[in-house]
Amino acid sequence: MSAAAQPRRLKVIVAYDGTHYAGWQVQPGKVTIQGTLEQALEALTHETIRIFCSGRTDTGVHAVGQVIHFDTRLDLAPWKWVRGINRYLPPEIQVTKVSRAKPDFDARFSAVGKEYRYFIWNAPVMPPHLRLYRAHVHKPLDLEAMKAAAALLQGTHDFAPFSANPGYNRGGTVRRLDRVSLTKKGYDLTLRVEGEGFMYRMVRSLAGYLIRVGLGEIPPEKTQDILRSGERTARVPTAHPQGLFLWRVKY
Amino acid sequence: MSAAAQPRRLKVIVAYDGTHYAGWQVQPGKVTIQGTLEQALEALTHETIRIFCSGRTDTGVHAVGQVIHFDTRLDLAPWKWVRGINRYLPPEIQVTKVSRAKPDFDARFSAVGKEYRYFIWNAPVMPPHLRLYRAHVHKPLDLEAMKAAAALLQGTHDFAPFSANPGYNRGGTVRRLDRVSLTKKGYDLTLRVEGEGFMYRMVRSLAGYLIRVGLGEIPPEKTQDILRSGERTARVPTAHPQGLFLWRVKY
Repeated sequence: MSAAAQPRRLKVIVAYDGTHYAGWQVQPGKVTIQGTLEQALEALTHETIRIFCSGRTDTGVHAVGQVIHFDTRLDLAPWKWVRGINRYLPPEIQVTKVSRAKPDFDARFSAVGKEYRYFIWNAPVMPPHLRLYRAHVHKPLDLEAMKAAAALLQGTHDFAPFSANPGYNRGGTVRRLDRVSLTKKGYDLTLRVEGEGFMYRMVRSLAGYLIRVGLGEIPPEKTQDILRSGERTARVPTAHPQGLFLWRVKY
Repeated sequence: MSAAAQPRRLKVIVAYDGTHYAGWQVQPGKVTIQGTLEQALEALTHETIRIFCSGRTDTGVHAVGQVIHFDTRLDLAPWKWVRGINRYLPPEIQVTKVSRAKPDFDARFSAVGKEYRYFIWNAPVMPPHLRLYRAHVHKPLDLEAMKAAAALLQGTHDFAPFSANPGYNRGGTVRRLDRVSLTKKGYDLTLRVEGEGFMYRMVRSLAGYLIRVGLGEIPPEKTQDILRSGERTARVPTAHPQGLFLWRVKY
């Protein structure tokens, strides 16, 4: 362990259970993922550390592959960083990988794509050990209808109807989704969404919409009309946070 | 809903997350699975209910297929029982199936076999969302060595070395295990154990032993010597409770 003359930039992969955290971003009087990570890093490095993530997550949302960057003068081998940070973190937040990054690497702006997964338990009773990591849908879902709607969501569209606050997107509301796919194994239904960028609550809106399609409340072929409408409507509810995982960020 | 003249016996499948419960059995001043279930059943039926399970589980141990029986005068359709009981239960405990049983059905003594599953996460860092439902083994496990030892544990043996209190087993310590198998998917290692009967902490002892074999601390071929020894030794540690699930009871 030694202090380098120049600060180095590190790229860190972080996994967390969002259940008992008030989301990502530091807020006065609340326990957040960002705040807890910064405290752990400061305890380890004895420096003032500000971290930057690929994108904030809401209260109750989980991650297996969130990415952050920060600068530090502390010089450690990657595995010592992982161990060292985790020693100061609660089991609800754990660092899985640390690597040296170029000085201009930015967890948010260097990202070329992201993958989210949304997990649904589709059976009358929710198994207790899965309750914090699945959305629960009691009534049977029509998987084929959901797949048909998912296929129509893939590609480049104006996703304004699937953003919780489309007006806040200065860059506009057109996004490209490279993958919107559904798989089922037993009662477990997994939605995978990959794209270059996402708006606020976009994945939970896509999940909420697909659940409505699966329940037979919206015919899948209506998807094109809704995409063309350019407006958020009551037909697109936001699905519960506990089913959502930030799975992977691509650079 | 009506009150039957004669009480009927019901068979109920129960799933639970044992993390925050002081095990199965009612204890003064502690929140237990049994106590919580009895309170829910009494709230629903307005009767004094005593339940009997297939076998107690320790603090922190989970279940997807625990079975209980009890007698009641309340007459409801099975799905109304499921919904009715779950309405009075916390999300940590849920009933998945209720069916009418013969008057002599006994959740414990009518059982002809049980399946337990023990889940191990074998990687340096534990993903936070799995931490309450997996045992964590940092160092790489030798799956082939564990499979070799598991094969030797299968069959009829004196399992005294794998019981936490062999002396308390009035019926002796010989048991038949029909299955001791290991599968691996990514970092997830699953131990499945099926048998006609189990002693106190027997599955956790088997798991603890197999982990030691996987770490290279005991050669798999020693398994026969240990089985023949008839004594609990330091070589058989009890694995952590959070990896264990009572999976299924056979009648």
